[in-house]
Amino acid sequence: MELPESVTITEVGPRDGLQNEARILPLERKIELIDKLSQTGLKRIEAASFVHPKAIPQMANAIEVMKGITRAPGITYIGLVPNERGARDAIGSGVDEIATIASASEAHNKANVNRTIAETLEGIRDVATIVDEAGLRWSGYISTAFGCPYEGEVDPDVVIEIASKLRDYGASAISLGDTIGIGNPRQVEALVARCLDEVSGPELRLHFHDTRGLALANVMAAMNAGAKAFDGSVGGAGGCPYAPGASGNVATEDMVHMLHAVGVETGVDVDRLAEAAWLAEEILERELDGRYKRTLDRD
Amino acid sequence: MELPESVTITEVGPRDGLQNEARILPLERKIELIDKLSQTGLKRIEAASFVHPKAIPQMANAIEVMKGITRAPGITYIGLVPNERGARDAIGSGVDEIATIASASEAHNKANVNRTIAETLEGIRDVATIVDEAGLRWSGYISTAFGCPYEGEVDPDVVIEIASKLRDYGASAISLGDTIGIGNPRQVEALVARCLDEVSGPELRLHFHDTRGLALANVMAAMNAGAKAFDGSVGGAGGCPYAPGASGNVATEDMVHMLHAVGVETGVDVDRLAEAAWLAEEILERELDGRYKRTLDRD
Repeated sequence: MELPESVTITEVGPRDGLQNEARILPLERKIELIDKLSQTGLKRIEAASFVHPKAIPQMANAIEVMKGITRAPGITYIGLVPNERGARDAIGSGVDEIATIASASEAHNKANVNRTIAETLEGIRDVATIVDEAGLRWSGYISTAFGCPYEGEVDPDVVIEIASKLRDYGASAISLGDTIGIGNPRQVEALVARCLDEVSGPELRLHFHDTRGLALANVMAAMNAGAKAFDGSVGGAGGCPYAPGASGNVATEDMVHMLHAVGVETGVDVDRLAEAAWLAEEILERELDGRYKRTLDRD
Repeated sequence: MELPESVTITEVGPRDGLQNEARILPLERKIELIDKLSQTGLKRIEAASFVHPKAIPQMANAIEVMKGITRAPGITYIGLVPNERGARDAIGSGVDEIATIASASEAHNKANVNRTIAETLEGIRDVATIVDEAGLRWSGYISTAFGCPYEGEVDPDVVIEIASKLRDYGASAISLGDTIGIGNPRQVEALVARCLDEVSGPELRLHFHDTRGLALANVMAAMNAGAKAFDGSVGGAGGCPYAPGASGNVATEDMVHMLHAVGVETGVDVDRLAEAAWLAEEILERELDGRYKRTLDRD
């Protein structure tokens, strides 16, 4: 088992988590959750999505969220953007970094943004120009990188091709998304190895959903293949509104607990993260899937 | 990643699963669940525990359970026994194989059976004599092999020592139990490698609880170290009545789904197993933690 000394965690709960919750949160509760996450040792928090509120009402008030949070020093606050308008809003709101998104399957990309993959990539290139001018870094998610709810298997060649384009456009990082939690450790090991080999330059991140309980096994497999950056959602909140049967991202605190247990540093305080997961449960008024928090006494 | 072509699954839901459920099931429902499991392709089912019903009321009617089930050809039905009386009852009831149990930590062994580990091992030796005379095989569980709810860390040397004694007494298999789901992939890899190296002879099984969501990652790590046999509990039912904070075993259907996904054969029909998990939920009147079943349409 080859493991890195440390990995970087990107907390995506306030974005990928909240956007698929049935409950639409008031502005102040989103801010409260992000502020709580800022006290856990996390260095990267995806705080908002600058989509049109008609498309994803859960993500309304993105600008106000960014203006309202109490920024902790050393934390990169990230905003997801669907297009140039979103990029301008995000930059204007003060985000430190931009995230873009494309799917590795046409059907999912169509469902997600009603465009072809090629059109989406062209849009990302335009966004990249704006972000470059603002002097910020940007990353690219590749959704359905391990399987699609509509098309089934996804060709790894397509994933590599999209990743290469994102690299060519200047992405500082690429996050391979297992949107519907269908990836398995053998597949993850193979795709991570290929990406690191064929798409050098951008940092490779892995973004696992835990639909079939495989997320932590996939994190181990990805590390064994050389990956050093992972996305998680506090408590395991989230999913994908356009991916039937998808459940939340891997619970960040479960992942951090495992990483520490196997001797991989994250810089995150797992018990503070569990407290943030409890806050998320309180705000969302439902029990979240994360396991680690259930083992703690809650004072 | 070094994976075996196939692994053997032992379904322990009717025993380790049910014994920790708050609900005490009527005889006919236990039989119904075992009969359902017998139609899934599973070749090994731990069907009952021959403990005193005052100790674990959930396990009452063990003899009647064994008499009442419809045996499917080729399936080994196993009974857990705490002592010689239990062994005689189990053999008389028609079990095909006996399971015994000792803990790797004194405090857990004391809480579990109110004896020292040494006394428990002497008892297992006496049970072994009876089982040998009956011409049956027997296995030994080692509970808390990866950590103890009372003592914390467990010395791997103690696990190896107990495993060696069980081997010397004639165990056909040894199942290392992560009773409280505290083991991690690095630890699992190391202990499996040591066991296979130092305790050759009996088959090595791994028995993971999923308390912190690590069970499937641990299965992968164990296979990578050479293990080829795993215990699971349908739906993820179960736990340990004497281990605070423990939750159920890994859901057998989640494990089977993962094994098939990575190309390891089990001989089990994962969708029939999911149907058995739904039956378990119906009988237990609660949702079980297994993830795979949630991705299926239930007709």
